Amino acid sequence: MIQRIKKIFIGKPLPNWEYKHQRLSKKIALAVFSSDSLSSVAYATEEILIVLMTAGAAALSYALPIALVILFLLWILILSYRETIKAYPNGGGAYIVAKENISTIAGLVAASALLLDYILTVAVSVAAGVAAVTSVYPGFLEHKVIIGIVVVFLIGLLNLKGIKESGVIFAIPTYLFLFSFMIMIGVGFFRYFTGQIVPTPAETIPILNGLSLFLLLRAFSSGCAALTGIEAVSDGVPAFKTPESKNARTTLLIMAGLLTFLFFGITFLALHYQLTPVHDRTVISVLAENIFGRTPFFFIIQAFTMLILFLAANTSFADFPRLCFFLAKDKFLPKQFMQLGDRLVFTNGILFLSIASSILLILFHGNVHHLIPLYAVGVFTSFTLSQTGMIRRSLKLKQKGWKHALVINTIGAIMTFIALVIITSTKFMSGAWIIVILIVILVLIFKKINIHYCSIAKQLSTSNIKAPIDLRGNRHKIVVLVQSFHQGIVKSLRFAKTFSSDVVAVHIDISGAERDRLIANWERFNPKMDLVIISSPYRVIIPRLMSYLDKLESEDPKLNVTIIIPEFVPKKWWHHILHNQTAFAIKAAIHFRPRTSYISVQYHLEE
Amino acid sequence: MIQRIKKIFIGKPLPNWEYKHQRLSKKIALAVFSSDSLSSVAYATEEILIVLMTAGAAALSYALPIALVILFLLWILILSYRETIKAYPNGGGAYIVAKENISTIAGLVAASALLLDYILTVAVSVAAGVAAVTSVYPGFLEHKVIIGIVVVFLIGLLNLKGIKESGVIFAIPTYLFLFSFMIMIGVGFFRYFTGQIVPTPAETIPILNGLSLFLLLRAFSSGCAALTGIEAVSDGVPAFKTPESKNARTTLLIMAGLLTFLFFGITFLALHYQLTPVHDRTVISVLAENIFGRTPFFFIIQAFTMLILFLAANTSFADFPRLCFFLAKDKFLPKQFMQLGDRLVFTNGILFLSIASSILLILFHGNVHHLIPLYAVGVFTSFTLSQTGMIRRSLKLKQKGWKHALVINTIGAIMTFIALVIITSTKFMSGAWIIVILIVILVLIFKKINIHYCSIAKQLSTSNIKAPIDLRGNRHKIVVLVQSFHQGIVKSLRFAKTFSSDVVAVHIDISGAERDRLIANWERFNPKMDLVIISSPYRVIIPRLMSYLDKLESEDPKLNVTIIIPEFVPKKWWHHILHNQTAFAIKAAIHFRPRTSYISVQYHLEE
Repeated sequence: MIQRIKKIFIGKPLPNWEYKHQRLSKKIALAVFSSDSLSSVAYATEEILIVLMTAGAAALSYALPIALVILFLLWILILSYRETIKAYPNGGGAYIVAKENISTIAGLVAASALLLDYILTVAVSVAAGVAAVTSVYPGFLEHKVIIGIVVVFLIGLLNLKGIKESGVIFAIPTYLFLFSFMIMIGVGFFRYFTGQIVPTPAETIPILNGLSLFLLLRAFSSGCAALTGIEAVSDGVPAFKTPESKNARTTLLIMAGLLTFLFFGITFLALHYQLTPVHDRTVISVLAENIFGRTPFFFIIQAFTMLILFLAANTSFADFPRLCFFLAKDKFLPKQFMQLGDRLVFTNGILFLSIASSILLILFHGNVHHLIPLYAVGVFTSFTLSQTGMIRRSLKLKQKGWKHALVINTIGAIMTFIALVIITSTKFMSGAWIIVILIVILVLIFKKINIHYCSIAKQLSTSNIKAPIDLRGNRHKIVVLVQSFHQGIVKSLRFAKTFSSDVVAVHIDISGAERDRLIANWERFNPKMDLVIISSPYRVIIPRLMSYLDKLESEDPKLNVTIIIPEFVPKKWWHHILHNQTAFAIKAAIHFRPRTSYISVQYHLEE
Repeated sequence: MIQRIKKIFIGKPLPNWEYKHQRLSKKIALAVFSSDSLSSVAYATEEILIVLMTAGAAALSYALPIALVILFLLWILILSYRETIKAYPNGGGAYIVAKENISTIAGLVAASALLLDYILTVAVSVAAGVAAVTSVYPGFLEHKVIIGIVVVFLIGLLNLKGIKESGVIFAIPTYLFLFSFMIMIGVGFFRYFTGQIVPTPAETIPILNGLSLFLLLRAFSSGCAALTGIEAVSDGVPAFKTPESKNARTTLLIMAGLLTFLFFGITFLALHYQLTPVHDRTVISVLAENIFGRTPFFFIIQAFTMLILFLAANTSFADFPRLCFFLAKDKFLPKQFMQLGDRLVFTNGILFLSIASSILLILFHGNVHHLIPLYAVGVFTSFTLSQTGMIRRSLKLKQKGWKHALVINTIGAIMTFIALVIITSTKFMSGAWIIVILIVILVLIFKKINIHYCSIAKQLSTSNIKAPIDLRGNRHKIVVLVQSFHQGIVKSLRFAKTFSSDVVAVHIDISGAERDRLIANWERFNPKMDLVIISSPYRVIIPRLMSYLDKLESEDPKLNVTIIIPEFVPKKWWHHILHNQTAFAIKAAIHFRPRTSYISVQYHLEE
């Protein structure tokens, strides 16, 4: 039943040999790895404007310099990541780079930051994608949380089916988005240079804050959301066609160029159209309407914005389970995260991501602006740790060109660290504290899990056993629990006799009538076996049975006791509620006794 | 832990030998068995007035004749039940009388009606008891549902501790109630005869219905709530001191006399004080205030009303589990209802009653008036069936005095049947339909459960086995599931070897690396046992294991297979989530294989 439902939604199971890695050309790789990064232009400008707006209309003009600072940071990061790609042709995520070059703890901090970042990417991208829709159809505004959750689970479902980096299908929305935005920005620039821009009549904006350095830094922090997702290329180097490393580095440059053009273009035009963020529409949608009017092109812009944002969320569904897999492999996460599902994907990681990001959407009411303060902390933590790792690597290995790399990575590490400090301090009260606390908690959990797995491996190790193994064991006694005399008991007694000659039947006497019937049957059928009757005036079965087992085991320290629990299995599930669940409780009690095992002998009812 | 909490709330377990039956004197028995019946005067008059009121103030005067008709019915019932007591000195509940003398189905209908009646008695009595409080402190009105549920569970808890018919403690509230009401009615009558009654100024009552026969019958139906609980004495005959039967019959007469005085008195005075039911106060509380003013005596009347109503609810907590016990004993209810709890009470019946009556309180907002239409249907169904059973008994046995009994029971059966028809038809739409449907459903469930238990008893019967029993069995093969090689596996292999020489180790190969490690270990340690490797490219363990077992069993139809499932038991509960739950799933799969048993061999981790 469950199998059939699963087959309909997930598809039929795939065998191990279908597992292979696709190689992507630069054109396809650009589309696959850049959707997360490029899509952030859909909300980054708006987030800068929202912060500046609180200091009045005049403050908005600071958006352009702030955007330029962020783009400067982008190029430093890009140059740094080109070094990482060179050094890690098999994929150099922040977790691996930090763990290998700094310390395990640094790796775990980077991993926690990244996991939280992936969850936030899903939540922010889906929320922004839904905002692109509600900007056109405000009627959906009140349902945005539920729409967001449906989208998350649809993307999750697609990933359980196993779409992964299937290339072309992902290239299409990315290029559609790119071209439509280039046209929009192009038309906007043309209007600007030909003096055709008619600014929207400036509304009077209430001034809530004075313009301060702190406000500018907060605007910068918000805008840093534009830099999320740029590490994707360096994680995915092995997916490129040969020469992998070179192709990946070229792709990174192209991506940075596109991001620069889009982010600068949108911010520039938003300022010159004098757009101010409004409650129920995105800045992009207002900009598109200013440029194109309510023409089909306006709707196309919104549709493609939505598509690339959902695609950005989708990339986390590849990255998050993969990082969980690496962590589980290193014994920092439960090994269930290593299990390949029916479709050769990491089912548990996908499910966990779907649920976690849905919870975020609920907690933050599907509101991009409320999620943003949490977003950049994790990203910049992993940037900083990754760059620092690269510095230590250069100093340690001193490979060819290490001085060049050292300079670049040092600048990168310093800049990203400064940005991290700015982001954490300006956004601390509005949400960044949550991420700081979560990173600490996650690292502690990782360590705790690791200690457990290592301790188990030690305890289960067979290294102290001499080969060849000697399997002669202790004496075994079989105890059959006989509460009444029926066909199921006969089967159990027969079972016991075939396995051992040391068998005893035990009856816990909770009602005299039952006991008398049993004794009569025992005399009549004469199974040639001792029947021990244990009186239980308080009508409890398990404690009396356990103390009997205690007695047996204390009398003979070498004895292992196996108890046979006769059970009958009804034909229909609801019949179970008509029977006592004593068997289940006995099994649970025996589970905690090191020297006792149990055998469950089922007698199957036919009606 | 759970044991300790249980001990605090429930008390320490009692051994079987503490189980005994108390004998009650007439004075105590009257108090114990009549609280349910007498307490109904707290709401019966009000329910009549509420119905009549819809036809305007003039219609209220019909309350007195209606009350007299109900009292006439009461005396017919009392005379009938005296016959039942004579015939059933061991207690003649409607279930037993109808089952023995009419048919099993009739017995089951009576039982369903009674069970529903007991649940309603708790709900109605507690709701009315809470209403007695809120009439004094209207601030509690909005919390009446939650207060009601708390009271239900407190009474349930007391019953789990096992108070039962502990006599004196129950006699006190009943007598306090009786005396205080007698004084109130006495003072009322004195005022009436001395012409001191100052009627409250008659409010204008909007006339919603014309005065019709249907309306009068509905008022009668509502008032019949006064007759609930009178069967308690006949159920409890064995609790009386010898001569049980005679004492019980005398007690019944005294109870009827008291009920007549109270019900007539209250209805009479309510009419002459021209009381009309109001939303947030009971008629009793308004009457008491009219007679005594806001003196302490007014508060005492309310407190004792509340007490006797809660006591009435408490009697259902003795009756309901006892009837469930009888039904379970006759295999119509799950046998869990026969289990004596720690304190020698029927825990499951008490829990079920608490939950069911709480649900009623929630569904009907703790409102007596909304519950009343459901109430009398069940009671009169059991009355009718009980009387009909007595008629058939007289005709069949023709014992001494049977003609006298026949006449009385025939009149009783006809009158209660007429009342049942009136109640069901006038209250059908306002709730009685629920009871009719529930009775049908309950009877079907009883039958279904009975069929199941009888079929099981037949299947488990050892009557076809020749004595002495021959316990020689089929060949057994032990299969050890070996997914990797560790200490737990070594323990399992050793276990298998001591039990049988026909042992095979099976490995389901879902990952090549694990398989290669296992083979290397097998060669190194050389356990002298076949290792079967089953490849599973779709990474599923259970289906492959099951098809292997299928193969073994089909090759040798005489072979019984026992599979050893090695499990390791972590030290802390949360460690469980760090491990696969495959062992559990395998056990569940084997549960449904008639020829396979399993042995769970636990390896206990120490850290």
